[in-house]
Amino acid sequence: MPEGAWPLGKAIAQLQGIYILAENAHGLIVVDMHAAHERIVYERLKAQMDAQAIRSQPLLIPATFPATPAEVATAEACQDALETLGLQITPFTPKTLAVRAVPATLAQGDAVELARSVLAELAQHDASSVVERARNELLATMACHGAVRANRRLTLEEMNALLRQMEETERSDQCNHGRPTWRQLTLRELDALFLRGR
Amino acid sequence: MPEGAWPLGKAIAQLQGIYILAENAHGLIVVDMHAAHERIVYERLKAQMDAQAIRSQPLLIPATFPATPAEVATAEACQDALETLGLQITPFTPKTLAVRAVPATLAQGDAVELARSVLAELAQHDASSVVERARNELLATMACHGAVRANRRLTLEEMNALLRQMEETERSDQCNHGRPTWRQLTLRELDALFLRGR
Repeated sequence: MPEGAWPLGKAIAQLQGIYILAENAHGLIVVDMHAAHERIVYERLKAQMDAQAIRSQPLLIPATFPATPAEVATAEACQDALETLGLQITPFTPKTLAVRAVPATLAQGDAVELARSVLAELAQHDASSVVERARNELLATMACHGAVRANRRLTLEEMNALLRQMEETERSDQCNHGRPTWRQLTLRELDALFLRGR
Repeated sequence: MPEGAWPLGKAIAQLQGIYILAENAHGLIVVDMHAAHERIVYERLKAQMDAQAIRSQPLLIPATFPATPAEVATAEACQDALETLGLQITPFTPKTLAVRAVPATLAQGDAVELARSVLAELAQHDASSVVERARNELLATMACHGAVRANRRLTLEEMNALLRQMEETERSDQCNHGRPTWRQLTLRELDALFLRGR
């Protein structure tokens, strides 16, 4: 698609560590960077899960962390559920867990934070049926950890890559909580701020 | 003044060849680039006129242009008025005028367009009293010619320079036609677009 036809436009700047600003034929596009990326990651995980294949990626160096007895117990009881989610979390010492693999889609994120969040959710459910019943919540939690955080400086190239992914991802115009991920400010609306007719 | 305290913020991008986008502590600043620059040029010309000294700058190569008999007549009749305005426009041939000097503040602009506009206004008035009576209109016309035009690409440095000039120029928050030259979109307003509370 030629640059001028990109629906979400061409990235021009990042604002307050939260928003991406882009320019398209109609005016200014404002993107909630974290919410949009979270949605893209979520939809990707969901598609992989539907195909029963969340691609897992072994960590070169397992990420170990001090774990509560409850976390160790959940990790041991839920090996199958974790594996379905693309995670491999095993006891390392009696008081330590090791994250050995994470979903490839989330490989950039913090493996320990991801492991802790998923274990906390699994502990609340009957492990055998959890993945079916709590699937979307679990994937949403995982997506949140995989999405770019506020205040991370992005290059224009990274911003444009995100915009292009949004254009290709179904339902990417709403975040996992139902809020919009981007808004258009038309030239007409901008001009109105300046009392200019068009 | 430290960068973080700049009221109009730090330029981050140009939008649609019309607006400058800047980031300050409160959110996003949108500046109508031409209107803001026009106002700065106007106030500068007015201050010089008040001090009875619009600084004139000779052109290395006079700008000649084919002129109507009316334009030639006005240029000859209004030498004093033109001089007061920092302009020197003299007959070059019977059908051609030469712009030999322009106000230093407008030296970047199109000398011929400037000369034609000023001659057209002078022709409408009684030359002897014109500068007193039509002073502000004349300066506004001249400022419009000296101000940066739509679709001119500015560097971030040029945009920041304009923002700093705006901060130092009285009444620069309104254009010569009474419209705002800049608007603040607060983070609260931006967040509201995304249904986010703060």
